[in-house]
Amino acid sequence: MINRRYYEISLIALFFAGICLGASPVQANMSSISAESQECIDCHSSINPGIVADWSSSRHSRITPGEALNKPELERRVSSKDIPDNLRANVVGCFECHSQNESTHKDNFEHFSYQINTIVSPNDCRVCHVEEAEQYGNSKKAEALNILRENPLYHTLVETITSLKTFNKRYIIHGQSSDNAKGESCYACHGTEVKVTGVNTIDTELGEIEVPKLENWPNQGVGRINPDGSYGSCAACHPRHSFSIEIARKPETCSQCHLEPDVPAWNVYRESKHGNIYNSIGYSWNWDNVPWKPGEDFKAPTCAVCHNSLLVDSENGIIANRTHEFGDRLWVRIFGLIYSHPQPKNGKTYLISNADGIPLPTTFDGQPARDFLISPDEQAANNAKMTSVCKTCHGSNWVNSQFAKFEISLAEADSLVQTATQIIQNAWDKKLADPANPFDETIEQMWASQWLFYANSIRYASAMMGPDYAAFKNGWWDATENLAKMHDQFLIEQKLK
Amino acid sequence: MINRRYYEISLIALFFAGICLGASPVQANMSSISAESQECIDCHSSINPGIVADWSSSRHSRITPGEALNKPELERRVSSKDIPDNLRANVVGCFECHSQNESTHKDNFEHFSYQINTIVSPNDCRVCHVEEAEQYGNSKKAEALNILRENPLYHTLVETITSLKTFNKRYIIHGQSSDNAKGESCYACHGTEVKVTGVNTIDTELGEIEVPKLENWPNQGVGRINPDGSYGSCAACHPRHSFSIEIARKPETCSQCHLEPDVPAWNVYRESKHGNIYNSIGYSWNWDNVPWKPGEDFKAPTCAVCHNSLLVDSENGIIANRTHEFGDRLWVRIFGLIYSHPQPKNGKTYLISNADGIPLPTTFDGQPARDFLISPDEQAANNAKMTSVCKTCHGSNWVNSQFAKFEISLAEADSLVQTATQIIQNAWDKKLADPANPFDETIEQMWASQWLFYANSIRYASAMMGPDYAAFKNGWWDATENLAKMHDQFLIEQKLK
Amino acid sequence: MINRRYYEISLIALFFAGICLGASPVQANMSSISAESQECIDCHSSINPGIVADWSSSRHSRITPGEALNKPELERRVSSKDIPDNLRANVVGCFECHSQNESTHKDNFEHFSYQINTIVSPNDCRVCHVEEAEQYGNSKKAEALNILRENPLYHTLVETITSLKTFNKRYIIHGQSSDNAKGESCYACHGTEVKVTGVNTIDTELGEIEVPKLENWPNQGVGRINPDGSYGSCAACHPRHSFSIEIARKPETCSQCHLEPDVPAWNVYRESKHGNIYNSIGYSWNWDNVPWKPGEDFKAPTCAVCHNSLLVDSENGIIANRTHEFGDRLWVRIFGLIYSHPQPKNGKTYLISNADGIPLPTTFDGQPARDFLISPDEQAANNAKMTSVCKTCHGSNWVNSQFAKFEISLAEADSLVQTATQIIQNAWDKKLADPANPFDETIEQMWASQWLFYANSIRYASAMMGPDYAAFKNGWWDATENLAKMHDQFLIEQKLK
Repeated sequence: MINRRYYEISLIALFFAGICLGASPVQANMSSISAESQECIDCHSSINPGIVADWSSSRHSRITPGEALNKPELERRVSSKDIPDNLRANVVGCFECHSQNESTHKDNFEHFSYQINTIVSPNDCRVCHVEEAEQYGNSKKAEALNILRENPLYHTLVETITSLKTFNKRYIIHGQSSDNAKGESCYACHGTEVKVTGVNTIDTELGEIEVPKLENWPNQGVGRINPDGSYGSCAACHPRHSFSIEIARKPETCSQCHLEPDVPAWNVYRESKHGNIYNSIGYSWNWDNVPWKPGEDFKAPTCAVCHNSLLVDSENGIIANRTHEFGDRLWVRIFGLIYSHPQPKNGKTYLISNADGIPLPTTFDGQPARDFLISPDEQAANNAKMTSVCKTCHGSNWVNSQFAKFEISLAEADSLVQTATQIIQNAWDKKLADPANPFDETIEQMWASQWLFYANSIRYASAMMGPDYAAFKNGWWDATENLAKMHDQFLIEQKLK
Repeated sequence: MINRRYYEISLIALFFAGICLGASPVQANMSSISAESQECIDCHSSINPGIVADWSSSRHSRITPGEALNKPELERRVSSKDIPDNLRANVVGCFECHSQNESTHKDNFEHFSYQINTIVSPNDCRVCHVEEAEQYGNSKKAEALNILRENPLYHTLVETITSLKTFNKRYIIHGQSSDNAKGESCYACHGTEVKVTGVNTIDTELGEIEVPKLENWPNQGVGRINPDGSYGSCAACHPRHSFSIEIARKPETCSQCHLEPDVPAWNVYRESKHGNIYNSIGYSWNWDNVPWKPGEDFKAPTCAVCHNSLLVDSENGIIANRTHEFGDRLWVRIFGLIYSHPQPKNGKTYLISNADGIPLPTTFDGQPARDFLISPDEQAANNAKMTSVCKTCHGSNWVNSQFAKFEISLAEADSLVQTATQIIQNAWDKKLADPANPFDETIEQMWASQWLFYANSIRYASAMMGPDYAAFKNGWWDATENLAKMHDQFLIEQKLK
Repeated sequence: MINRRYYEISLIALFFAGICLGASPVQANMSSISAESQECIDCHSSINPGIVADWSSSRHSRITPGEALNKPELERRVSSKDIPDNLRANVVGCFECHSQNESTHKDNFEHFSYQINTIVSPNDCRVCHVEEAEQYGNSKKAEALNILRENPLYHTLVETITSLKTFNKRYIIHGQSSDNAKGESCYACHGTEVKVTGVNTIDTELGEIEVPKLENWPNQGVGRINPDGSYGSCAACHPRHSFSIEIARKPETCSQCHLEPDVPAWNVYRESKHGNIYNSIGYSWNWDNVPWKPGEDFKAPTCAVCHNSLLVDSENGIIANRTHEFGDRLWVRIFGLIYSHPQPKNGKTYLISNADGIPLPTTFDGQPARDFLISPDEQAANNAKMTSVCKTCHGSNWVNSQFAKFEISLAEADSLVQTATQIIQNAWDKKLADPANPFDETIEQMWASQWLFYANSIRYASAMMGPDYAAFKNGWWDATENLAKMHDQFLIEQKLK
């Protein structure tokens, strides 16, 4: 409460200061809006008042890139040094974002004599935020769609789940999987490939207007392939037109995709002491400060604190650098794959080739494809970045002991998967199931659940201290029960054969 | 944050204004409390301080109906034009609500020389809120108990679930289902039939008092049948004695009944970008304003925004009218039924008769009972009401594309149900299961799960953009696995036969 | 909102008052920090700024025990009357807590010429908080680890779940269960036994330092056995170094361990009208006041309100006394056990011996071990304590009817378990399953799910009014389906035999 109280009191001081100066800090800086953006606003403030109001509350509407470049480096929120001169004097309005790189945008269209892009892409944001765009572009996030499409195992998983099924009175037949089924499930987070396929005519108060017809859209997945050829969607975490750093820093943002049963990061966090403190008193923290000070601005970490944000101590000494490469502080990869393994060197994980010649980071029995994964030294370096965040609030002995437990948990979770793999291999060997598609029979789906849900949960529970996810919520209980059921199914298939 | 800051600052201004005028806006308007209500308060403020404090914080305690009628129409929160004169001068206190329509109230009792109704019903609230009572009375919500009791399919489902079961060493025998079991599960949301069955004697500091003995109470289900014969409970969404519009507008209120696995509206919302924004910055929004302005008062929709609230633009132009008919902005019905279908014309859905003569909106293989469902024109009209809300923050192209995807999702979810229906029909045809009760065998329960949980989730996930509910959280993964398990069960039943 | 507004306005008044007095209420009371604690802070404020900032925001950093003892009794937060003189003059800093009872602490070590305990235990907190330590020490919480370890049934359950499993091409073999697997799942909430097993060397900027090597740590489980021999962890609910009463009173704190599927207290609360109100407007309540006033300070109960907190009415009349014996206001025990039963007399439940000579509170068919359970009179007394809280906001008729329903729900949930027990007993009798380990075969796991998940949920749903947990979320639906599946499995085992 204390922090909040002071914050509010300082707001009041600010308010009286504001009165004296005749300035109004909460509205768009109207004097520096470009003529083009002003024209957008003139119409759209009545057509889409929510968009305009959202933008008006944003930092983009108040600070020009020129002003942003003059901030002290630690406080600076733009990373490009070479922002074009013609963009420096006006605030970042509608036209500034929706008109960049026109020639590459297949979604560009003429709109009341302006050339407008429907979708603002990471390549457009790069004009001012080059470091963020670079880091993101190299991450697994930017490749999230390709990882699903280009890897045969994941491709089969997606197609099997989302195919339409029919029953011919004897068997279930898997049919086609539509773009819609994938776009509304897996690709909603991983991203769709947005294509321009023609023109839509829209009735408006000003008459009919023509806009690009887009396929696989709306979508805001992190690996979206945009009509300008770029990968990703900044709006996935910086939503809509406020681009609020508060929202990006809130764990609920990450929770949209990182939730149980396959990636229970949010759920484990919520259950952890960190999440407990955030949920109890987080409303009183300072969510907008850059740089961000542990202890002063917030009292427990959120996702962004550990994985992304620029953190400094009370003397502005750097605890952790800002990063948009989401693997930068990670040394092992604990979800989505059959076994845990060192982080891949490259976001294009479909280029991995393991000892069996398969594009997976481990073999079927768990041997890592070391050439494609970071080295022990790189692992140690990433671990050091993460633990420097932990040590802000925990002693070294605490932190070291915590991660020693985590290492054991990884081995134990992998062992639970290995046992399931032995059963399914046995079933395949005995022709009790058909490995042609490893996801379409119940015993195979149990095998997939063992790694995709239960082992993932046990790993996350240990990493982030939400123990029920290692116990009864897709944890050891479920993994144990699943093995017993796989064994039963094995016996039944033998009988039924 | 910005909005909040200004809000707070204006509160301070208000406060100083308050000092000057000697007015205190936060306490009950003591001078206009009726003598009867004052007598209630004199005792109950020590017996039930929570109730009195809750009421004291309410608008009911501060504004008289007479004052409410003088508000400009857009700001008015009472819809009756003919509020009786004797109710206009005093604030709406204990006695004003608990003494209406005494003759119809079987729960009326003498209490220290006053005649008091235990339960205030929608028919009592109607005195001031006639439009809301009318709209609600015509909705499926008011019929929620009858829909379960009067429809044979749902009746069987409820009885099967809530019956006590015994094991006779060979079979599981389904016994009786108690009022308690139903009242504490299904009817808790759908509403119980509250009956007066006698008199209870209560020991108090003032001696013994007698109060009506009520059966199937406490209950606040939306289709509750009250002792005065009316249907519904306003307290379901406007809880207790503050009747807070903030609470009614918060999605957590709707989430009490509309949650996974059968109606995952809340869960999908929470996971969506709308829910993400609400959960991140909703604490800073203006929750009390009437009318309500998108962009200014709030930055992302809640349940109430899309389905109920009076919304206006910055020039007070109406975006959407207030409604307590919860189907008013809906064109399809996506949960609770085997297949999706146009909204029913009438809340009394148990009066529907489909082509098979069954009171269900579709036949067993999906043909809609068109005579009882709204027409394509009515569907278009309802869709237009909803999309006018969407367009506040999204372009037409965005909105149209979103709902085009939704239409495909409905067809795909229905197809997943159809396949399950073919399997269960085949099992019934081959006497592998007994259709006499379609819910008491495991293969039948799998069939019910396919529509009641998995197809519902896929539909909601697409409607409201929470994709994990179309993937791993009761979505395509679960529907696929369920079909494989149904097929296995089919084969096992054949072997075991 | 109203409460909040006034609160904020009064903060402003406070602020101006603060200016006049030259006092700053939000920082540690620097003038009364002991020399020892100051030396801790001098180094650790740069090494672990989060810890120091957290403590600086705490009441411990601002109020000396001497000042605390001078508060009026109702406002007092220390219960010891005999706090040693040498602790009265300084605020409660690092050294004050981490140096108590040095001789009993096996985790004590020399640290820059001070003797420091790594873990502060309930026995250390007892110096100022003797009543809380006493009450807690007698509760089931303090015995939570022993309850799992010393009771053969629970011991078997834990070991079965957390054992590593292998597959020998015919059977699943249960191997050893590691300390890590237990510590990261069941014991994370129940507590580990923390042992000192040597010395760790840590590299610091000041050179190498030696600290105790602790096994089964970090852990904050409620039944933790500490290196000083004491039981429990106050930090489980009063986390880290702020010891915030707000956090302890927030339901998210309890939710860390009391959540679905085995103890769905948090989930049922969240779904209930109480949770709905808390989640909608709880941000505006007064979380720090002692004593705590229903209606004034808060408008709906949290876990702490009903189970622990000191509550008074507007005239400071006591509604409920503060307690850290968590069973103090409970008359039945509704989770974790096969059947519901009166609360045990003693936290050491492993000392119970039922009619079959087993340390369980009921026999296998449900007969209570009355000698070890509280009497009907004691049940009535505890019920009276709880209902006095309910009656703050509900009439007696309401409260009595609510708990009458609850009694029926207990009987019905127990009946659902009894049927499952009859099936498993029959399976054991017919050698279809082996009772040697009652948790390692699928039909046995179904039996355990019936009581550990489904019956628990139905009981909680009725106790705390979250009806979906009695319906589709591990409720009657799941219990019904589970019985059908147990019966199927029974038939399959017969065929496969």
